[in-house]
Amino acid sequence: MHLEPHLAPRPANHPPLTPVEFLVRSVEVHGDREAVAWGDTTWTYRAFARMVDRFARFLRTAGIRAGDVVSVMAANRPEMLAAHYAVPMLGAVLNTINTRLDADAVGYILGHCESRILISDAECLAVASQAVPHGVALHVLSCPRGETSGGNALDLLAEDGIAPALDLGAIADEWQPLCVNYTSGTTGRPKGVVYTHRGAYLNAVGNVLALGLTTRSKYLWTLPMFHCNGWCHTWAVTAAGGLHVCIDRPDPALVFAATEAHGITHLACAPVVLYMLLNHPAREMRNPANRVRVATGGAAPTETLIEQLGALGFDLVHLYGLTESYGPATVCDLTEEERARPAAEIARALARQGMRHATASRARVVDAAGNDVPADGRTMGEIVLVGNTLMAGYHRDADATAQAFRDGVFHTGDLAVRHPDGNIEIRDRSKDIIISGGENISSLEVENVLHRHPAVLLAAVVAMPHDKWGETPVAFIELRKDVMVDETELRAFCRLHLAGYKTPSRFFFSEIPKTATGKIQKFALRERARSMEIRGK
Amino acid sequence: MHLEPHLAPRPANHPPLTPVEFLVRSVEVHGDREAVAWGDTTWTYRAFARMVDRFARFLRTAGIRAGDVVSVMAANRPEMLAAHYAVPMLGAVLNTINTRLDADAVGYILGHCESRILISDAECLAVASQAVPHGVALHVLSCPRGETSGGNALDLLAEDGIAPALDLGAIADEWQPLCVNYTSGTTGRPKGVVYTHRGAYLNAVGNVLALGLTTRSKYLWTLPMFHCNGWCHTWAVTAAGGLHVCIDRPDPALVFAATEAHGITHLACAPVVLYMLLNHPAREMRNPANRVRVATGGAAPTETLIEQLGALGFDLVHLYGLTESYGPATVCDLTEEERARPAAEIARALARQGMRHATASRARVVDAAGNDVPADGRTMGEIVLVGNTLMAGYHRDADATAQAFRDGVFHTGDLAVRHPDGNIEIRDRSKDIIISGGENISSLEVENVLHRHPAVLLAAVVAMPHDKWGETPVAFIELRKDVMVDETELRAFCRLHLAGYKTPSRFFFSEIPKTATGKIQKFALRERARSMEIRGK
Repeated sequence: MHLEPHLAPRPANHPPLTPVEFLVRSVEVHGDREAVAWGDTTWTYRAFARMVDRFARFLRTAGIRAGDVVSVMAANRPEMLAAHYAVPMLGAVLNTINTRLDADAVGYILGHCESRILISDAECLAVASQAVPHGVALHVLSCPRGETSGGNALDLLAEDGIAPALDLGAIADEWQPLCVNYTSGTTGRPKGVVYTHRGAYLNAVGNVLALGLTTRSKYLWTLPMFHCNGWCHTWAVTAAGGLHVCIDRPDPALVFAATEAHGITHLACAPVVLYMLLNHPAREMRNPANRVRVATGGAAPTETLIEQLGALGFDLVHLYGLTESYGPATVCDLTEEERARPAAEIARALARQGMRHATASRARVVDAAGNDVPADGRTMGEIVLVGNTLMAGYHRDADATAQAFRDGVFHTGDLAVRHPDGNIEIRDRSKDIIISGGENISSLEVENVLHRHPAVLLAAVVAMPHDKWGETPVAFIELRKDVMVDETELRAFCRLHLAGYKTPSRFFFSEIPKTATGKIQKFALRERARSMEIRGK
Repeated sequence: MHLEPHLAPRPANHPPLTPVEFLVRSVEVHGDREAVAWGDTTWTYRAFARMVDRFARFLRTAGIRAGDVVSVMAANRPEMLAAHYAVPMLGAVLNTINTRLDADAVGYILGHCESRILISDAECLAVASQAVPHGVALHVLSCPRGETSGGNALDLLAEDGIAPALDLGAIADEWQPLCVNYTSGTTGRPKGVVYTHRGAYLNAVGNVLALGLTTRSKYLWTLPMFHCNGWCHTWAVTAAGGLHVCIDRPDPALVFAATEAHGITHLACAPVVLYMLLNHPAREMRNPANRVRVATGGAAPTETLIEQLGALGFDLVHLYGLTESYGPATVCDLTEEERARPAAEIARALARQGMRHATASRARVVDAAGNDVPADGRTMGEIVLVGNTLMAGYHRDADATAQAFRDGVFHTGDLAVRHPDGNIEIRDRSKDIIISGGENISSLEVENVLHRHPAVLLAAVVAMPHDKWGETPVAFIELRKDVMVDETELRAFCRLHLAGYKTPSRFFFSEIPKTATGKIQKFALRERARSMEIRGK
């Protein structure tokens, strides 16, 4: 049987996959359900659709057309979520900007993606005003809570009584650009990662499957929406018909209050937020009987973290991914039976990055020749990905795109082993490997040992130049409150669990610099380490 | 921002969507979990993948290549499920045939889709042998339970120790044909409905969302897999990593035994199977504390059915769809709160066909001009659909395809109203409307009234020619066991709830003919009615 001409796709049976469609459906099917909560206000799906429609009308009036880039620099407030529907509905491209960037970085991004308009909240207004290039309009979201703003106030929260017309006509092709998300740019200038409607639709579906989102889900926005569009949870929660609970910042007091007030079932965040939760007095508010599924990634959760969070009613799911993979590419989750085991065993299981996400086609660990490494838990290789939830490429950077997709797979640059049960465990970013006397040292392995020490809140291990061994590991340590420890004790602790050459040569005690998304800024630590050098004895 | 050339889709970020991929992933992620149970035997996902691989190797050896049609006529046994992966994996097209068809109908189908091979089970062998055209190979699935077969025995259950190679290389395009499913052909010859890999992938995802399938789901195969590929549950359960429990036929004793033995969580079937369950002594086995979600469609569940099934631990979900829509196109489900209400209220809510399925883009009710009817619960129109889960078209029938997709939507031929809350409720198939004295009578409305009478097991109402009114409704009644009722009582009952012209003129008491999938064969009843005529008084 061949594909007869009359069986070719037609608009009626081949509409473009787009995450905006999730909103259209949820308005139809769950119109009176709660869609978004912020402060004391709640919007039903129907009311949220009106907000999206107001946003779209504003943009259209501002001259935005299909293909134009719309930049937003704002906290996790309802308009930020609405931007994820209003902008793509026009066929325009959403560019959410990290709210912690400085004017130079923001200006670079606005220029690089040729943004036509910048929408900022009051908090980001100073940087936004400084960054906005000549000829690009700047609008500032109105301040419903009495903060002062200025500039072109844009009030999207005020009802105007106009029935929404969620018209998807401008979404002509599921491969058209939906977003351009800039990487954090640990080396050089940030790159503009282009998402498509198809990829975002599928990753949202994958998230619904991975997290078990339903109409009963109450999702707390602790993860910044500017970060990979909140791992596509901006669309996934809507796909499930659940409730988005917005908070202005992942402040532990706000997190605990919202968790209890709304009966939160899911949240996602960087480990640093979890550490903050554990160490905040507001944790007293928490009723651990109402379990919350917490998706986290960026660093393996430690035994202590898992145990203490478990006692607070938080069950961790460990995810791994990159901006280039729309967020999650692998998932490590446990069954209820597995969660009943001792914390040490749970920690060992959850330390792994897991297996491919439902909508990732392949997550492999390969050697330099592109062959799968043996699944022995020891042989290191690079994680490479294939799947519909990989970026279209880097905006205005054909070379980097070709390089990332060389040999027909996407290269993550992350080094990992594959365990016999198929789980992937990251050993390090390629650039985080420390080579000392010709031996590879995984900074992650050393950090994991340090994290087991009761005094250590955060540990980061990087290479320091060494005149004899080339490089040697050094550790930066952030201590828990009210504890005391010294280099001798930590060194002895490391020697108990690590080979001598892996034990850090030096220990620095200070707060560790982090990115806006809570990732440790290793490049800053590496620079600090590079400025010193150890002379061999 | 335009789509720069280097952002065009590439194999690494645009692999074809295919439901075969669900198996590949579940083998990776859930390899040791139970995938399929049949009788006393259980296969893990890894073991099931070996069966699929043996099947694919057999087909390849038999000369099957991409584009070839492979026909299967078998009960819901593991090889039938395996066919849903082995055949499309080769790029071939699966043609599952209703096991109750006669040799003439089977021969027509085999010839129409130019099938290259027919695989039958022992029960279907007699018909298969008679039907198989010259030059088409016939193979018989081996009989592991001591039944006698004959012909070319094909043993796919015997392990051969060869590691499976699930190679999806032959799936070059997500729009390539996956299946050709023949309609039941209530009028004229059956039509060959062509499914694509993309549509089946998306409908499977939609089913996972609609039924809440997870790794903990135990799905009982009461719905024939030959019927729209079991509404795509063949792929959905695998996508979720759940367990497929196969039984040879939806016999109540088998259903109840398997439900308790495996802790079934989901099943799907026609209402006629549900009535059989209610009236079978094996229902004593049932532990109603373990709730089972039951997806049903084809006729609105009655209050009595809902109440009695509820007491047996079965919670109904009402679906509506057609072969052309890969099974479910709309879903009517209730929240836990709604399920706690009185049975009459539940019945009223569940009588509706609901709202569009997660992966159906539009389910509208339109007038003759193609405009949406008002959502007033009264104005009738035709249900039209748009979405990725609509067939590519009818095989070798460009005219019928164009007719079905005229005006840019798929025409279901089903007449419905839309309620103010957005739910669709079917009033009738266009051809089931009875026009009496110029008034439209919905046969469904009359049947719903009759179903409320305690003596009525099944009722079917069709038009009988009438020399004065043109048509008049007549009722065919199947009674419950051990009850007695007469025409006078039923007529009086109808008059209580219906206008006089809607009350059936005659009542015939007998078993009602049904299709293999449990649908009432209205065309047979209409023929019977047409052979009589009522002279007006």
